[in-house]
Amino acid sequence: MATNQEDVKLLGARGSPFVCRVELALNLKRIEYEFVVEKLANKSELLLKYNPVYKKVPVFVHNEKPISESLVILEYIDETWKQNPILPSDPYQRTLARFWAKFIDDKVMGPSFKSAFTIDEKEREKNIAESSEALLTLENELKDKFFGGEEIDIVDIAAVFIAFWIPLIQDVTGLQLFTAEKFPKLYQWSQEFLNHPVVKKSLPPREPLFAIFKGRYESLFNAAK
Amino acid sequence: MATNQEDVKLLGARGSPFVCRVELALNLKRIEYEFVVEKLANKSELLLKYNPVYKKVPVFVHNEKPISESLVILEYIDETWKQNPILPSDPYQRTLARFWAKFIDDKVMGPSFKSAFTIDEKEREKNIAESSEALLTLENELKDKFFGGEEIDIVDIAAVFIAFWIPLIQDVTGLQLFTAEKFPKLYQWSQEFLNHPVVKKSLPPREPLFAIFKGRYESLFNAAK
Repeated sequence: MATNQEDVKLLGARGSPFVCRVELALNLKRIEYEFVVEKLANKSELLLKYNPVYKKVPVFVHNEKPISESLVILEYIDETWKQNPILPSDPYQRTLARFWAKFIDDKVMGPSFKSAFTIDEKEREKNIAESSEALLTLENELKDKFFGGEEIDIVDIAAVFIAFWIPLIQDVTGLQLFTAEKFPKLYQWSQEFLNHPVVKKSLPPREPLFAIFKGRYESLFNAAK
Repeated sequence: MATNQEDVKLLGARGSPFVCRVELALNLKRIEYEFVVEKLANKSELLLKYNPVYKKVPVFVHNEKPISESLVILEYIDETWKQNPILPSDPYQRTLARFWAKFIDDKVMGPSFKSAFTIDEKEREKNIAESSEALLTLENELKDKFFGGEEIDIVDIAAVFIAFWIPLIQDVTGLQLFTAEKFPKLYQWSQEFLNHPVVKKSLPPREPLFAIFKGRYESLFNAAK
C-alpha cells in the first residue's frame, strides 16, 4: 500500500443497524471503503484481532488502525474527513447531538428490539412502554426536517434503527411500535430520511432481513410451545 | 450576570461517581464552579428543568446551557476550556480514549455495583465474573502511570469508580473485587491516582459514603430474611 493512499475497511454484517450507521457516514462523506463481510457464527481472525474486547461488528479500520463502537467510529470519521460534517460545529450543539445519539442507544434500541423478541408477556409490555416513552421524547425534540436541521447529522444516523429496523420488527410481529398516528413528526422524519438518496443507497435489502427476523420470531414461539 | 463572566454550575450529589468525574475535570482545569446539591429523594425544580429526560445528576450548566451525561459533559468541558487537556490531541488516540471511557461505563460499573447490591447468589456470581473480566481487560490495557500516560485523561477520570468506589463496595461487602494480587498494574494505578493532589481534593469524604453503602447493604439482607 502506498503511504499516500487511504486504506479504509469496514468489517460488518449487512443486517446490523450499528454497521449501517458507519456506512451512512462514509457514504454521506463520499469516502470509498472496502466492506468485509463478517459471519456472526464464524468470526474471522481479522475481527478477533481488531476487536478483541467485544468481538463484534462494526469494526472500522483506517490505515490498519481499528476502531470499535459505532458512535465512536462516527466521531472519528467526522474528525478525519471534514466534508459534509455529521457533527455540528457549535460546541453546545455538538454536545446536544452526542446526548441524543447516546439516548437512542440507551433508551430506544434495547426496548424496541426486546419487545419483539421475548415470549414473556410482562417483559413485552414493559419494553413496549419504554420504547414508546423514548420515541415520544424524540418526537418532542424534533424541530426540523432532520434532527440535524436541513442536513442529516449524527442523531439522524443513530436513528436509522427507528426509520428502518423498527418498521421491520413491526411487520414481523404485528406490534404497533411506531405509527404515523402515535408519532406524526417522527414518522414524517422517517419518510424524509428513507427517501434521502444516500440513505437509500446505504440500507440493507429489506426482504432477506425480513425473512431472518420472521424466522427468528417464529422459532422463538415454536420453541416455547 | 455580566456577559463576560462565566457562569458555571454543577448540579450533583457528593456520593455519585458520575458527578465526581465532572468535578475532577473542572478541578484539573482549575475552573471555578458552583456546586448545587441535589437530593435524590426531593429533586429540585432546577434539575427537572435542566434534565427533563433523565432527571438525574450530574447536570452541568454553562451560562444557562444545561448538559447531561457525564462523558458528554467531559467532552464539552475539554472543548470549551483548552488548558490541561483531558482528551488526547491525536485523533486516533482520542478515539481510543473514548472507547475505553465507554467500556468502563458499559462493562465495569454495572457488574461491580450489582455484585454487591443483590441478594441473588447466582446473580452475584455472574456479576463478579463480569466485573473481573472487565478489570482484567483494563489491567492489560494499562501501559503507563495513568491511562493518559504521565497525565490524567478522560479514561482515568471515568475510572475513578474503580479507584475509589470499588474498594468502598469491597469494604462494605467483604467481596474480593479489586485486589493488588489479582490486578497488580491496575491497583498500582489506583494508588497513583488517589494520591494525585487534584483527585484528593475532588473525592467525596469516605466515611459518610461508607455508612450509606453499609446501611443499604444491610437493609437489603435484613429485608430478605
